[in-house]
Amino acid sequence: MDKPNIVTCTAPVNIAVIKYWGKRNEELILPINSSLSVTLHQEQLKTTTTVATSRSFQDDRIWLNGKEEDITHPRLQSCLREIRRLARKRRNDGGTAVDSTCLSHKVHICSVNNFPTAAGLASSAAGFACLVYSLARVFGVEGELSGIARQGSGSACRSMYGGFVQWVMGQQDDGKDSVAQQVELETHWPELRILVLVASAERKPIGSTSGMQTSVQTSCLLKHRADSVVPGRMVEMIEAVQRKDFPAFAELTMKDSNQFHATCLDTYPPIFYLNSVSHQVINLVHRYNRHYGETRVAYTFDAGPNAVIFTLQQHVPEFVQVVRHFFPPETNGGHFIKGLDVNNADLSEELKQSIGLEPTPKGISYIISTKVGPGPCVVDDLTQHLLGSDGLPKKTV
Amino acid sequence: MDKPNIVTCTAPVNIAVIKYWGKRNEELILPINSSLSVTLHQEQLKTTTTVATSRSFQDDRIWLNGKEEDITHPRLQSCLREIRRLARKRRNDGGTAVDSTCLSHKVHICSVNNFPTAAGLASSAAGFACLVYSLARVFGVEGELSGIARQGSGSACRSMYGGFVQWVMGQQDDGKDSVAQQVELETHWPELRILVLVASAERKPIGSTSGMQTSVQTSCLLKHRADSVVPGRMVEMIEAVQRKDFPAFAELTMKDSNQFHATCLDTYPPIFYLNSVSHQVINLVHRYNRHYGETRVAYTFDAGPNAVIFTLQQHVPEFVQVVRHFFPPETNGGHFIKGLDVNNADLSEELKQSIGLEPTPKGISYIISTKVGPGPCVVDDLTQHLLGSDGLPKKTV
Repeated sequence: MDKPNIVTCTAPVNIAVIKYWGKRNEELILPINSSLSVTLHQEQLKTTTTVATSRSFQDDRIWLNGKEEDITHPRLQSCLREIRRLARKRRNDGGTAVDSTCLSHKVHICSVNNFPTAAGLASSAAGFACLVYSLARVFGVEGELSGIARQGSGSACRSMYGGFVQWVMGQQDDGKDSVAQQVELETHWPELRILVLVASAERKPIGSTSGMQTSVQTSCLLKHRADSVVPGRMVEMIEAVQRKDFPAFAELTMKDSNQFHATCLDTYPPIFYLNSVSHQVINLVHRYNRHYGETRVAYTFDAGPNAVIFTLQQHVPEFVQVVRHFFPPETNGGHFIKGLDVNNADLSEELKQSIGLEPTPKGISYIISTKVGPGPCVVDDLTQHLLGSDGLPKKTV
Repeated sequence: MDKPNIVTCTAPVNIAVIKYWGKRNEELILPINSSLSVTLHQEQLKTTTTVATSRSFQDDRIWLNGKEEDITHPRLQSCLREIRRLARKRRNDGGTAVDSTCLSHKVHICSVNNFPTAAGLASSAAGFACLVYSLARVFGVEGELSGIARQGSGSACRSMYGGFVQWVMGQQDDGKDSVAQQVELETHWPELRILVLVASAERKPIGSTSGMQTSVQTSCLLKHRADSVVPGRMVEMIEAVQRKDFPAFAELTMKDSNQFHATCLDTYPPIFYLNSVSHQVINLVHRYNRHYGETRVAYTFDAGPNAVIFTLQQHVPEFVQVVRHFFPPETNGGHFIKGLDVNNADLSEELKQSIGLEPTPKGISYIISTKVGPGPCVVDDLTQHLLGSDGLPKKTV
């Protein structure tokens, strides 16, 4: 068989601080409001995707986390179709340097995450960003790609950039102006740290696609939020990020998370993503900040019970110790903290009393310690390809 | 000493189906939106208050549930002042039949509830309604009294009437037009039944007075709700009650409860009144209704975790059995159900599977089974007075 053309790329997870909830167009995935996110560092959380094309391949195929999945999924098909359309356009314009014969070839895709799906992190954003970035490389497409990633999974468009990223909702019916834009580079705010508190979830919550459909149909507060609250918050948030104003960034992040969950509760039937551990984390953060008389820590929650915490480097050791104290882990081994190293810290009795919550043993499984990171990258090391020269997943996957 | 002039009255608890949350005037207790409630039957839930006046009394005094309390509380003082003002006005207009000399007398007040405070039911509404009704009787005041009860506790104005009651928010700065009005008599909808599911609460939630202050100051969704959502819902709810349209009444009741709790979550810092048992009850009700393809049961929650359930008489036995199945009580004795008798019912396997929740043992302490009831009444039986002829609480209190 012909030697396949192979590319491997990685892409990051992002966490929204101004939330996306609700589509105005289901097929094109156009949102009812703009949103803003922080790209998490790929050393802790990333998707790796290998894409191969070959004249010898019979069909488009995809393997996710070691298991072959259905390539006919409409959102996968949207991304494949759009990338091929751009590649064809580019070839017809005479601009491509890449061997354009591969345009007629079938593609094999293999993708893995370096974090468990059970962590409840939105892996579809990193997954579709990585898919689109890899396909673009293999088919020789350049330029604006976030609009294609968006058609895979809305929030995936924000994973196409590092640092601080806004997804501008756009106005056009065809969605051409609904794209992600970098607000600041990943190097902009080096002191910012992120802790993912992985809650021991009891049951799988309702999916975000159907959840947001029901919200758009039934919540009058969601419409008000999208039309009248978010536009002002986007301006405020961009300014807070540009100024590196942690209290402003933190308070708006918490308010927007709460408002998103409020619109879920205003949905009929109501949707609950926060559980009692989430409520405890929220209370803990507010009491921690109140103890110091300043906003040192912020929480945000997506469509699940896991808290994502923002704080500054200098407060990480103490806050982690606070979490460990009020959510005593199963063992006292080092496995409670994954990712970036966290120094030990002592807690004062005053602080513990000031927080004054009843400890919840095993409420949090573990913490992923990370920071702001870069956007998708090409992996140059050929040994990292997930597909072999036969176009099939390597045995190690 | 002179024989005191004694009156004993009772007043009901009410449960709002269009919620009151937020004041536009803290002192006069004027709300930011109208609300609508159902008066619960006093056989199950009532406050009894005895008021005595005598030339011999040295001071105004009050005993609540057997314990003397501070009469100088501003809201108690508001009610006392307003009733005495009306009595004086009436005397000066020459209209009173009651011995007006008692106007200069001090008053002793003694009040008890026939339900535990731990039930988490808003006892202040029944309490202030009963206080104002009793004081009006002893001082010979008649006519509109809900505006005075409102100044004791906002929702108390709705406990001044039986059946279905709206609190019209009013427009005037002096609050004269912010009063309760009966929408329908207690005999209007005899099939309607009410079940109070008393949750085993872990801790006391934040009080409603300070909670609603913070919400008014910080929640942009609350303002939108008050200005743009509630006015339409009041019209819809009054029509649903008048038509006795259970599905319309039930759905609007659930939506409005959820929206109230959504605005609590949109408050900063957020307020949580619903706990995991409340979430379970909400899910249970929606799955029960879905199983039958019609809205047979509704929930509503005030500023605490207890669910108040509305349903029609014919569905009570089965729904109670559903609650007993998914919240198995500590013992299987008869104490799980208080109030109106509930017949036994069997549950089909299909129904249990269709609801499909994990049972939560002891999540609900007990159920109070009740119905729509009348407004405040005078107790003619003199042996029921809570104050003796010496003006002090009887030993049995």
